[in-house]
Amino acid sequence: MEIDLSELRIWAREGGAIARSYFRNTIGRRKADRSWVTEGDIEVERMLVQRIADRYPDHGIIGEEKARHALNKEYVWAIDPIDGTACFVAGLPSWGVSIGLLRHGLPYLGVFYMPIADEMYWSVPSGGAFFNDTPIHVAGPGEWDNESWISVPSNSHRRYTINFSGKVRSLGSTVADLCFVARGSATGTLLTRCAIWDLAAGLSILREAGGIYIGLSGQMPDLPAMAQDGSLLPEPVLAAGPEHLDRLRAVIHPRD
Amino acid sequence: MEIDLSELRIWAREGGAIARSYFRNTIGRRKADRSWVTEGDIEVERMLVQRIADRYPDHGIIGEEKARHALNKEYVWAIDPIDGTACFVAGLPSWGVSIGLLRHGLPYLGVFYMPIADEMYWSVPSGGAFFNDTPIHVAGPGEWDNESWISVPSNSHRRYTINFSGKVRSLGSTVADLCFVARGSATGTLLTRCAIWDLAAGLSILREAGGIYIGLSGQMPDLPAMAQDGSLLPEPVLAAGPEHLDRLRAVIHPRD
Repeated sequence: MEIDLSELRIWAREGGAIARSYFRNTIGRRKADRSWVTEGDIEVERMLVQRIADRYPDHGIIGEEKARHALNKEYVWAIDPIDGTACFVAGLPSWGVSIGLLRHGLPYLGVFYMPIADEMYWSVPSGGAFFNDTPIHVAGPGEWDNESWISVPSNSHRRYTINFSGKVRSLGSTVADLCFVARGSATGTLLTRCAIWDLAAGLSILREAGGIYIGLSGQMPDLPAMAQDGSLLPEPVLAAGPEHLDRLRAVIHPRD
Repeated sequence: MEIDLSELRIWAREGGAIARSYFRNTIGRRKADRSWVTEGDIEVERMLVQRIADRYPDHGIIGEEKARHALNKEYVWAIDPIDGTACFVAGLPSWGVSIGLLRHGLPYLGVFYMPIADEMYWSVPSGGAFFNDTPIHVAGPGEWDNESWISVPSNSHRRYTINFSGKVRSLGSTVADLCFVARGSATGTLLTRCAIWDLAAGLSILREAGGIYIGLSGQMPDLPAMAQDGSLLPEPVLAAGPEHLDRLRAVIHPRD
């Protein structure tokens, strides 16, 4: 399957420009799960669904805000029009437009664009991961020190005991968290309460940058099942470079 | 004392442009305390010290990287050329140029510019606080919910028990943390290991936005003493709107 990645990056920038026009200028509403949605999310998703349906009519689409189309296809797009909507509403910079493509329910490729920092992350199936056109790779072997950092969800103070020796940040976007691991800046990231549209692009980019992931219990999450019904990760997932994943899993523990 | 605030904002933007030219393009070095310094910090501080000394020759100056000049004056500038250098080195967006003015050792006015998001925060003595020319105010009374958020230092997972019901973020810049409280986005922020140049601008902006602060033990920090010798806060400090400060203090506890 030939996908035009430069076209995808144009769509992501287009979505970013729409979202940015609402930034600092929007009123969020709460969805049934109490998370935010804005006019920006809805307008960007509508635009991306239209572009994808026109260009790839044989593919399925699943999106955060509404889209559920032909989820039984070999290729299904999983899009999050604004990953990090809570940050978006709070006026924080960590949010972006995430466009992922699943093949048989597994991350195949992805594009993530962060408008505030003008950062574009993308991956080519078996062809590497890129940050603004530069190839990226997860952090290699090495000891952690007090400047090493990981990212965690913003409710981690209540949910986990974390004995990491470096810095623990909470930035607010799952896909951004994965991209900072992919580019070797963050040592790892802990992900919770994610649906497939939060993961498809970011995990593609992580994989192509040499990274891996696993559930905190040691089980792999069943992403194809999540792609069928939009359900959330059944348990937290850690992502990191292969030299760091097991060591991170040993220092992060759910609280009782 | 008449201070030209529009000139200060120009200097902050000028410093931001210098720093930004090093962003994603710098190699950090560790200082004696293991924290980062880059060529960007040094060049921005040199520029700001020069501008201030030329324009306000009767004032003192204290800066993060080197400046220690006439600290016994009524007016002393406290500057942090890049607040959030660890973020800057990590490629994260939360850093900025902080220019504060102390009077008798207490925050008098300040300007903080974040180049990546192009956000300018500033305060006028007894004249209010502003974000990109819009007046700002801390959050008013109200219950916390799961979208309320506070910011904490990146080592808080080891140091504090936090029973806050909302989100806890760690973004990486002390002054940005204070500005997000000042504009009513964050409910509060916990500050540790800060020197006077991390606090002068941010606390001026917080005060003019109606915010207050106090040490976790209930004591006020002795800022004039910190302005004399560049020493760090003797204990963590909480900053918030007056409706939230005591309630936050009740849910954040140092670990043994």
